[in-house]
Amino acid sequence: MIVLFTDFGVTGPYLGQMHAVLAHKAPGVPVIDLFNDLPPHAVRAAAYLLPAYAQSFPPESVFLCIVDPGVGGARRAVMLRADDRWYVGPDNGLLHVLARRADRTECYEIVWRPASLSASFHGRDLFAPAAAMLARGQRPEALPSQLTPPSPAWPDDLAEVLYIDRFGNAITGLRAAGLQRDARLRIAAGRVAHARTYSEVAPGKVFWYENANGLVEIAANQARASEILKIAVGDVLGEL
Amino acid sequence: MIVLFTDFGVTGPYLGQMHAVLAHKAPGVPVIDLFNDLPPHAVRAAAYLLPAYAQSFPPESVFLCIVDPGVGGARRAVMLRADDRWYVGPDNGLLHVLARRADRTECYEIVWRPASLSASFHGRDLFAPAAAMLARGQRPEALPSQLTPPSPAWPDDLAEVLYIDRFGNAITGLRAAGLQRDARLRIAAGRVAHARTYSEVAPGKVFWYENANGLVEIAANQARASEILKIAVGDVLGEL
Amino acid sequence: MIVLFTDFGVTGPYLGQMHAVLAHKAPGVPVIDLFNDLPPHAVRAAAYLLPAYAQSFPPESVFLCIVDPGVGGARRAVMLRADDRWYVGPDNGLLHVLARRADRTECYEIVWRPASLSASFHGRDLFAPAAAMLARGQRPEALPSQLTPPSPAWPDDLAEVLYIDRFGNAITGLRAAGLQRDARLRIAAGRVAHARTYSEVAPGKVFWYENANGLVEIAANQARASEILKIAVGDVLGEL
Repeated sequence: MIVLFTDFGVTGPYLGQMHAVLAHKAPGVPVIDLFNDLPPHAVRAAAYLLPAYAQSFPPESVFLCIVDPGVGGARRAVMLRADDRWYVGPDNGLLHVLARRADRTECYEIVWRPASLSASFHGRDLFAPAAAMLARGQRPEALPSQLTPPSPAWPDDLAEVLYIDRFGNAITGLRAAGLQRDARLRIAAGRVAHARTYSEVAPGKVFWYENANGLVEIAANQARASEILKIAVGDVLGEL
Repeated sequence: MIVLFTDFGVTGPYLGQMHAVLAHKAPGVPVIDLFNDLPPHAVRAAAYLLPAYAQSFPPESVFLCIVDPGVGGARRAVMLRADDRWYVGPDNGLLHVLARRADRTECYEIVWRPASLSASFHGRDLFAPAAAMLARGQRPEALPSQLTPPSPAWPDDLAEVLYIDRFGNAITGLRAAGLQRDARLRIAAGRVAHARTYSEVAPGKVFWYENANGLVEIAANQARASEILKIAVGDVLGEL
Repeated sequence: MIVLFTDFGVTGPYLGQMHAVLAHKAPGVPVIDLFNDLPPHAVRAAAYLLPAYAQSFPPESVFLCIVDPGVGGARRAVMLRADDRWYVGPDNGLLHVLARRADRTECYEIVWRPASLSASFHGRDLFAPAAAMLARGQRPEALPSQLTPPSPAWPDDLAEVLYIDRFGNAITGLRAAGLQRDARLRIAAGRVAHARTYSEVAPGKVFWYENANGLVEIAANQARASEILKIAVGDVLGEL
């Protein structure tokens, strides 16, 4: 299984060209569009979302991770083996949080290059073919290496709003396992208490909960928490 | 064939996680994204769209229908056999109109539960695996049951705007077969006459027609009917 | 491989119905969503995007091209064989630029009609089944013909903004191969110089480059060129 995790958006001609390469070079391998409207260029936000949303995928899944504002420049292309899955992407911090939390990792710099490489779309030309090789059980030419640590040092969890979904829910980079259930949180214009799920609170009421991927999420029952509390991506979460 | 009919939106990480479960548990079964930006939480609107958009699918298709504001609460999970197709979803009225119009139905409450069930994403954890079983010819553990009728009673057709598409066309819940072709309709700021298709009217002119799924739809030739007449979801359609 | 190139949008129930027909009538054939949010009804813009975005697909790919404001009217349905690939769509100019640039073309009018043909969704009822036949190595009943030239005559390249992507990049219909690299371009409120890729300019700076499909594109490093220069679809590109 090849899994797309990108900031390419679900519109335009980018995802389709990725899928065409994968269908051509890894025929018969299922390709899953996991998350393709990650905030544009926001490497750090994506780095904290990746381990949460990758966690339930089967062994040998190959994640194709592309948030790559430095495309065509000096940043390296890497492939990371972490706990029985592969992650392919730019070495710009995107894979850093996932690697830090993994039990076992091996990192390689991809030195293989395609016959034709555009300056601006390495997702299509370099990363997708490399992922296709891995999914077929082959390896692109690569050298043992290490991820470059992003600087300044990133925290264990990112207590910020990283994404607002179509329901107006605000997904954060804070793992809920570290919070008491009676914790009250401060976010944007509001203070919110915990609930287990939507139907436990009155319609329109805002709450925080552990979402289905283990992250703290601010939501409302049948209403848009982001509008009620005027939450924006980047807002910092505080504990009261 | 498994067919997705949800309010999850085409962005974010939800559809991808559904597809991952289906690819893992029903490998090789085609999965169709039929309609995934249904108005959020709008069970009744979705209930009237479902029979129109489901009608041309082949026998043994399995529809995975999720508009589920009560997820994690007391509402039951059901599977409905209707006219040689399966429909899996919450028992909150979503399958009600389809069942009412079917010639033959059998309803079952799904009592099977996965080893791990989140409070907020039964689409991924419960309904998708159940649909995968049905698509493979198996049955999740279930008991004969009945759909719970929504209250107050819903009409045969819903003469309201249920969805505005990317062209600015307003799709209603009114079946066109019940209208005379010379009927004039009142909607929002306008009154519209019938045409068979776009090219029969002048550019910019608004009309109603029987859309390709049998519903009354308000459209304009190469223009946005929703903007010209200021139509919003929920607007009521009247006959003059 | 069947490739979708349409203005249906990525939301709503249209693409899903196309995919259902293709899965049913061409089982096992990969279907790629190349570009489905082409500007609505904009046949000419799509005609200049098609050859750029189709160029890297494998031989025998079948392109299903639908920007069809005249659906249900007098315009013909055609299939075009151009340089070892098939293109199916309305004869309204959409295939004109691609055909003009091809080395070898054969055009056919599709005279096959399905048992049931809606007035407004020939994509689902006529073009998708025809594409499925071609992908399976069959031919829908058709007569040798010619494309109808659009009038007035269209230029070799279209020096206009045809699409603005999710990053705020403005894709034009001008092939970069015809420009010197030291050319400076005028677009909307700005004048821009060339760069090879994003990371070659300072963050926030706007430039033009040859995009990964050979077209002139106006972009900015980690910022939205369309907002910085107030670029809109249809804006004309000038050379200084």
